[in-house]
Amino acid sequence: MAKEAAGRLEWRTNVPDETSKKLEPDYGLVGKTWLRLKCVMGGLVMKVWGFLEKVWTLGVAEPRKVIHCARVGLALSIVSLFYYIRPLYDDFGGNVMWAVMTVVVVFEYTVGATLSKCINRATGTILAGALGVGIHWVADRSGDKLKPIVLGVSVFFFASAATFSRFIPSVKARFDYGAMIFILTFSLVSVSAYRMVELFELAQDRLSTVAIGASLCILVTMLFCPIWAGCELHRLIHQNMEKLVDSLDGCVAHYFKDSGNLTISEEDLNKKIQGYKCVLNSKATEESMCNFARWEPTHGRFNFGHPWKQYLKIGASLRRCAYCIETLNSCVGSDIEAPPCIRKHLSDKCLKVSSYSTNVLKELAITIMKMKKSSKIEFRVAEMNFGVQELRDALKSLPSHLLAPPSSTGEESTEATSVPIKKADVLPPIMKVLPLITVVSLLEEIAARIGGVADAVEELASLAEFKPAKDRKPKQNLPTNKIISDNLNRQTI
Amino acid sequence: MAKEAAGRLEWRTNVPDETSKKLEPDYGLVGKTWLRLKCVMGGLVMKVWGFLEKVWTLGVAEPRKVIHCARVGLALSIVSLFYYIRPLYDDFGGNVMWAVMTVVVVFEYTVGATLSKCINRATGTILAGALGVGIHWVADRSGDKLKPIVLGVSVFFFASAATFSRFIPSVKARFDYGAMIFILTFSLVSVSAYRMVELFELAQDRLSTVAIGASLCILVTMLFCPIWAGCELHRLIHQNMEKLVDSLDGCVAHYFKDSGNLTISEEDLNKKIQGYKCVLNSKATEESMCNFARWEPTHGRFNFGHPWKQYLKIGASLRRCAYCIETLNSCVGSDIEAPPCIRKHLSDKCLKVSSYSTNVLKELAITIMKMKKSSKIEFRVAEMNFGVQELRDALKSLPSHLLAPPSSTGEESTEATSVPIKKADVLPPIMKVLPLITVVSLLEEIAARIGGVADAVEELASLAEFKPAKDRKPKQNLPTNKIISDNLNRQTI
Repeated sequence: MAKEAAGRLEWRTNVPDETSKKLEPDYGLVGKTWLRLKCVMGGLVMKVWGFLEKVWTLGVAEPRKVIHCARVGLALSIVSLFYYIRPLYDDFGGNVMWAVMTVVVVFEYTVGATLSKCINRATGTILAGALGVGIHWVADRSGDKLKPIVLGVSVFFFASAATFSRFIPSVKARFDYGAMIFILTFSLVSVSAYRMVELFELAQDRLSTVAIGASLCILVTMLFCPIWAGCELHRLIHQNMEKLVDSLDGCVAHYFKDSGNLTISEEDLNKKIQGYKCVLNSKATEESMCNFARWEPTHGRFNFGHPWKQYLKIGASLRRCAYCIETLNSCVGSDIEAPPCIRKHLSDKCLKVSSYSTNVLKELAITIMKMKKSSKIEFRVAEMNFGVQELRDALKSLPSHLLAPPSSTGEESTEATSVPIKKADVLPPIMKVLPLITVVSLLEEIAARIGGVADAVEELASLAEFKPAKDRKPKQNLPTNKIISDNLNRQTI
Repeated sequence: MAKEAAGRLEWRTNVPDETSKKLEPDYGLVGKTWLRLKCVMGGLVMKVWGFLEKVWTLGVAEPRKVIHCARVGLALSIVSLFYYIRPLYDDFGGNVMWAVMTVVVVFEYTVGATLSKCINRATGTILAGALGVGIHWVADRSGDKLKPIVLGVSVFFFASAATFSRFIPSVKARFDYGAMIFILTFSLVSVSAYRMVELFELAQDRLSTVAIGASLCILVTMLFCPIWAGCELHRLIHQNMEKLVDSLDGCVAHYFKDSGNLTISEEDLNKKIQGYKCVLNSKATEESMCNFARWEPTHGRFNFGHPWKQYLKIGASLRRCAYCIETLNSCVGSDIEAPPCIRKHLSDKCLKVSSYSTNVLKELAITIMKMKKSSKIEFRVAEMNFGVQELRDALKSLPSHLLAPPSSTGEESTEATSVPIKKADVLPPIMKVLPLITVVSLLEEIAARIGGVADAVEELASLAEFKPAKDRKPKQNLPTNKIISDNLNRQTI
């Protein structure tokens, strides 16, 4: 909003209209320049204000990001104490710089990422340092003339090899930073050893300052409002499930909005439907979170060996649902309307399938959130399959409707099938019901894919040894429960 | 394969089977341990061999990655000359370290990424340096007791603010590295200034070495086999189009494989079909390439102001196609088979729509590759729409087939519509044709989305001022051309 205002203001300043020119008194060149400058400054201020407002919104929406920023500031302030306190500075001197640098480079948003960087840095440094010293020893014994050549060739070879290792997917995922540090340390050690005598002392000082920086980072990140990558991944999967629930609900409600009684405004509905888009693009985030989570120690409800990789499988199955919902969403927007009688005939069943499917997803989301095995999930999945079966049954009775002249209702047409039909009456409906049939088919597919999500969550529950949940109060969040179980009792499937 | 072999070998070593035990002579404890060690070593060697083989495959598949590694090695070797050559070392001393560090940190795979990092580093360093010196000046004037407090508070405040800026999407996309360097430099300058006197000299030396490192990186990355992010993005979009062509072709061919004459093996077909999966997950790569490409100077056929952002739009529209193809792919795998007569009735039309759609995509891929406006694209799109219309017409004549008893053929059923039909005959087919109708509907949707891709490419052509292409030889790559244009002439649409 502020941006718009700024835009408008800018427009006003750049394109002064005719009327204002006539009305304004003549200020002279200086006055005009001053006026223009004032306007430009005003525009600038508005822009900055708009930016700040955006930043404020971001901060309010995700307070943990603000906390992270404060933590970075805190860690840096603590590490600067090494400069301010005389005895500490006397011990380390200029090498304190390395502690500051380590804090800046290593401190990441989540504990896992920070730990991963610290471990990578340590491993890379030690490996490269040892190798560098070794190469230096070899170079020393090969004569003064050969020395720079041996050093240069080894730098070329090892740097190239380490760079190549960064392209290997398994290395890139977990040890990318370590490989970079390896190149850096190896080059520095093997090359600077050429000129320096007190290599070991230097290395020792530098290593100790880096260790100070790294351990400070780990302490601050784990003690002050820790943000665990594992929790983030857990939350992301849970949120994605809820987004899919909203999208699926919204899509189907939007399509059958005439027949159902829609209580939500068009705008809210559209916003709800768009949820699946986040799920479509969450792969990269999930993968990096999973990689970081694997470094994290036991925290909260998660043990060290928690099956984080299974979350990726759940994420993939959720994305498969999202692809289908994306397709469903464009079918929903299709212009061709099915004849009302057919629509009515199928809408109830479709809404049921969608509500059963979302119930399964909601139950799975609860399972994930509470980390307890759900006692109801099997029932929910059976219910969903039953809904799909009902929808199929409803479809089976469709041909009679298809053949009905467009004006007649569903009830009449059942009798009408046995009388001779002219071809002209037969032709149009198939095209009209095409989108509806597609919606039905996609709903079936979505139900099948939600079954896949349920399987993935079940696998997680057994891998992570979730305990069975205590029974929740009945009918909470599940208004259609009774009707369905009645249905299930009546029609045994 | 080697991995499998290694696995097998390991299995053999760990689980010695009964028969071999009986036949083997008794070696005694030392002999056994030696044998086991030999086997373990063998397994290890096989594993390492397998890994090396994988690395070799990666290198052969993407030789440019190997070239990049050589470039990194080269740049580092050149920068080490500062240590080996006496006069150069005397000038810079230990500060040469900063040049080495800059090369390691700044050298990236593409020119754009390297430039982006260099510019970010320079901007971040200068801004933070100036601010740090300013803060130092203020701190100096606030008394000895207040000095560390002023410095500490300013480090806390600016580091937090810069960290927060990294969360703002627009900053993160282009200036993430700059913000990190800002924090680093600011902390180092403002804090170390507390203890150092010759701040300016130190800063000057450091800046000049960093500048040497950065310019070396830029020179090497631009002169030795440069890899341009823009070209990569261009190639990625082109490849994605071709992958979608393969997937769509493969999917439809797989579904109608009985009716068409399939010349390709099942395995190859499956591999072809999976192409869309790469497109589904290419968003992150496209976005980063686009961000880097915007830093690159004019190169090859791309000017500085090339509309890279439009490639993101094309990428998004390609992904929308991929979502649909993903859904189509699972419909294709459905168990329920449509009655042969209906299948036959629609398969030709479906194959036509798919072939017309892929023709559009192929033409668009050529447009992208050659960067010339296609003279045929409008015709191709019209052809695709015509194919969709034909498919719809074919669908319109379906109800008669639907009503036919399963044993009768399509030709007989046309006459059968006007005679009375029993309900029992009517019921089954609708469920049987459901997947087929869904395939038809998805094909229509895919065609519509390919239309979207065509629009996006057209927009790119006008934004980047593509020149019209010279006429290519007719019938090249386009075998169905003549038949279609005949069709078009017969049925004016």
